[in-house]
Amino acid sequence: MVKMSTRNRLPGTITEVAKGQAAAKVSLQVGDNHMVALITRESADELGLEVGQEVTALVKATDVMILTHEGDLA
Amino acid sequence: MVKMSTRNRLPGTITEVAKGQAAAKVSLQVGDNHMVALITRESADELGLEVGQEVTALVKATDVMILTHEGDLA
Amino acid sequence: MVKMSTRNRLPGTITEVAKGQAAAKVSLQVGDNHMVALITRESADELGLEVGQEVTALVKATDVMILTHEGDLA
Amino acid sequence: MVKMSTRNRLPGTITEVAKGQAAAKVSLQVGDNHMVALITRESADELGLEVGQEVTALVKATDVMILTHEGDLA
Amino acid sequence: MVKMSTRNRLPGTITEVAKGQAAAKVSLQVGDNHMVALITRESADELGLEVGQEVTALVKATDVMILTHEGDLA
Amino acid sequence: MVKMSTRNRLPGTITEVAKGQAAAKVSLQVGDNHMVALITRESADELGLEVGQEVTALVKATDVMILTHEGDLA
Repeated sequence: MVKMSTRNRLPGTITEVAKGQAAAKVSLQVGDNHMVALITRESADELGLEVGQEVTALVKATDVMILTHEGDLA
Repeated sequence: MVKMSTRNRLPGTITEVAKGQAAAKVSLQVGDNHMVALITRESADELGLEVGQEVTALVKATDVMILTHEGDLA
Repeated sequence: MVKMSTRNRLPGTITEVAKGQAAAKVSLQVGDNHMVALITRESADELGLEVGQEVTALVKATDVMILTHEGDLA
Repeated sequence: MVKMSTRNRLPGTITEVAKGQAAAKVSLQVGDNHMVALITRESADELGLEVGQEVTALVKATDVMILTHEGDLA
Repeated sequence: MVKMSTRNRLPGTITEVAKGQAAAKVSLQVGDNHMVALITRESADELGLEVGQEVTALVKATDVMILTHEGDLA
Repeated sequence: MVKMSTRNRLPGTITEVAKGQAAAKVSLQVGDNHMVALITRESADELGLEVGQEVTALVKATDVMILTHEGDLA
């Protein structure tokens, strides 16, 4: 079995793929949230990413930031 | 109004804060998913992060990867 | 009040916006320094980024590297 | 001559070094701004980073986000 | 079959694991090169990482920088 | 002498440069491995990157993930 150190794995559905020459933007619906990935166009082509496809968004823990809403907590 | 280029904003609840000398790990429940952030301990202290707090996880689009499950799509 | 874990917040002025299909490059003058951000084109469009606009460059602490100049310190 | 693709190079002075077992936090004064880097403790040791040292903070363009203040621009 | 957008996959052997409270440093031998990963301690524990273990280092293309040696090319 | 906190320095040869408007993809042969960098087009132009050029791929330790193959270890 393959195991990955990557802590964040969010299953979702592709809603848009926009390809440039070098980069590609992939939009996803993940639960109630909208997500966006900027990857190489090479990846988007090799994985054959297309609208409606079920995928998992991966994010390394070092790349997650936290925003607090102090007012909401009062 | 403040606007951010950061594309991924996932609201959730803190389930654990583990602080080291330099870094801190923050665990979150975001919808049906578990998320983990590795931030500076300084940030965790200044924001007063604690279990049960409602926060938003932020991720830059360039830090999101895509995993496909070809078998599942067959 | 909104608080962010993101440690690095550098106020500056946009000097150039170059848009591709998927990505956009935003150049900034921040004090005496030139900075460059590579973001999604979607972000650049939604935020309406344009030359002369005053913005803040944000960088997560985990993304900052350090370069030393040993010769200069001798 | 060595050239680097890394677009953001911000000269500054170290104001604090906090070392953990695995990671180290380095605080810097860069012009009028405060900056923070989270690096490996190994790097902090090998480079002999200490308060008062003049260094350059490096950031890849893909790691820079943009925040706008619409109210301020009105 | 699982496919990943992550472009850089470098097989190697773990040479050191240093664990802090929140973070862990993992050193690897990858061909002729030494590599270092800073991950969460949680990941290092869950994957049971230990010296001598064969693993693959993964890096997103957006996180790779390029250094040139102009003098060497003369 | 210049020293960098960046832990991962992998010497290789450029095998492809694909330029978009904002971003550029640079492919490298590094030992037995193929690597890909997504950088700004500005960087690719300024460094004059071209096929056959010997360069060094740089990666910050916080951007390296670990994949294990439990089955292989049984």
